[in-house]
Amino acid sequence: MDLTFTTETSSDGVVDRSFAIGEIPGVFWSPEHAAPGAPLLLMGHGGGLHKRSPGLVALARQAVVRDGFHAAAIDAPGHGDRPRSQQDQLWVDAMLLARAQNEPLSPIIAPFNTSLAERAVPEWRITIDALQSLPEIGAEAPIGYSGMTIASAIGIPLAAAEPRIRAAIFGGVFVYEAVLEAARRVTIPIEFLLPWDDPELDRESGLVLFDVFASEEKTLHAFPGSHFHMPTDRIDTRFFLRQLGVPELAGVAPECA
Amino acid sequence: MDLTFTTETSSDGVVDRSFAIGEIPGVFWSPEHAAPGAPLLLMGHGGGLHKRSPGLVALARQAVVRDGFHAAAIDAPGHGDRPRSQQDQLWVDAMLLARAQNEPLSPIIAPFNTSLAERAVPEWRITIDALQSLPEIGAEAPIGYSGMTIASAIGIPLAAAEPRIRAAIFGGVFVYEAVLEAARRVTIPIEFLLPWDDPELDRESGLVLFDVFASEEKTLHAFPGSHFHMPTDRIDTRFFLRQLGVPELAGVAPECA
Repeated sequence: MDLTFTTETSSDGVVDRSFAIGEIPGVFWSPEHAAPGAPLLLMGHGGGLHKRSPGLVALARQAVVRDGFHAAAIDAPGHGDRPRSQQDQLWVDAMLLARAQNEPLSPIIAPFNTSLAERAVPEWRITIDALQSLPEIGAEAPIGYSGMTIASAIGIPLAAAEPRIRAAIFGGVFVYEAVLEAARRVTIPIEFLLPWDDPELDRESGLVLFDVFASEEKTLHAFPGSHFHMPTDRIDTRFFLRQLGVPELAGVAPECA
Repeated sequence: MDLTFTTETSSDGVVDRSFAIGEIPGVFWSPEHAAPGAPLLLMGHGGGLHKRSPGLVALARQAVVRDGFHAAAIDAPGHGDRPRSQQDQLWVDAMLLARAQNEPLSPIIAPFNTSLAERAVPEWRITIDALQSLPEIGAEAPIGYSGMTIASAIGIPLAAAEPRIRAAIFGGVFVYEAVLEAARRVTIPIEFLLPWDDPELDRESGLVLFDVFASEEKTLHAFPGSHFHMPTDRIDTRFFLRQLGVPELAGVAPECA
């Protein structure tokens, strides 16, 4: 499916273009002077957020400015600029009610996230196809994926299914059987972020999920607090630069790599 | 106690000086052109190793070259250039025998490491006194501590006792009551490295130790494999640069900080 750019702005060395691929709205960030073969970082947004959520945009711009990467985000089904289905609305209402009443969220989140992932994984694959057709990307650019909470519920099955994704950061995700099943098929290098004292995500299930990833290279990063505030700046391990980075990239000082 | 330098060499931008403080032999690494107020990184060596073990030297030189830090290491009691006491030899023999016979190491390591820590903590404090008396360091330079295995068995009580240490990386350590008790008194920012599949260190006790650190800012980094090969290069989070770094330090490119 074709990718159509709808807007373009440029600031602080970052070219920011909105795009649409059929009904999927997205954003594509690029260095003003991208190196040939620069890696592409796919960025999933958290539950209830969207492709231009401030935290996501900050990480995307950092990847562009600091690492010379391209970055892309799309709205998940029912998020951002996309209409929410009646069924999704029922799940959201049930989740907010359970949260307000301090009841377990898992019985709602497991089927909701499973359904989201079933819809979103094919959309990400179409998005990869479309981005690879851009001259800036092409078929050879290394591709990584980063996303917490629902973006991990989507990203873990995506990484299990999609060999073009070479490295990923996940975390803060509700664990249910479909996620565990997908994680057992993930073999790429991963980092996994675990909120240590989350009121909603139990620690033990996160440790189990980390354990079952089939990746030979995997690192667990656990930190105090909840999944609402992931301290990505404090646990930046320059993972994607190591996994995807190309030394001759313009703008990347070798001593930073 | 006075610090006496015994040798000095210089290569690749690093000045390497051996020193002695009474019976404590050490190494002090510095940038050829150190910035005033450059931080000091104290580096403990692992069990059976010494102040010039290759992994330690590589990390020390990286701290000097990349971050503009000073770094220092000393031999733990009975290690490196220091004579091993009869009691320490008994513990070492018992440990090697238990390892060869695949028996639990904890009953030997707990008293051995406790004794080492009781001797080594005061030595590190004397070393800090002596290093602070050097004009390159002074009383104000920020100080960090990094060390795995026995260097954590020593470093955790050291960090609990010594307010001059402002940040630390620990890991791969046998957990017994004295270590837990000290960890509960550690309040500085820490990173804690946990080998996920160690044949000798059980995962659960490592998770318990991470949990009890009183530090508001703490991060657990878990990775496949054993404590014999800590992938420090793969989980480099530029922790000390964030915790101790001074932006105006010579040689530190701001975009790396």
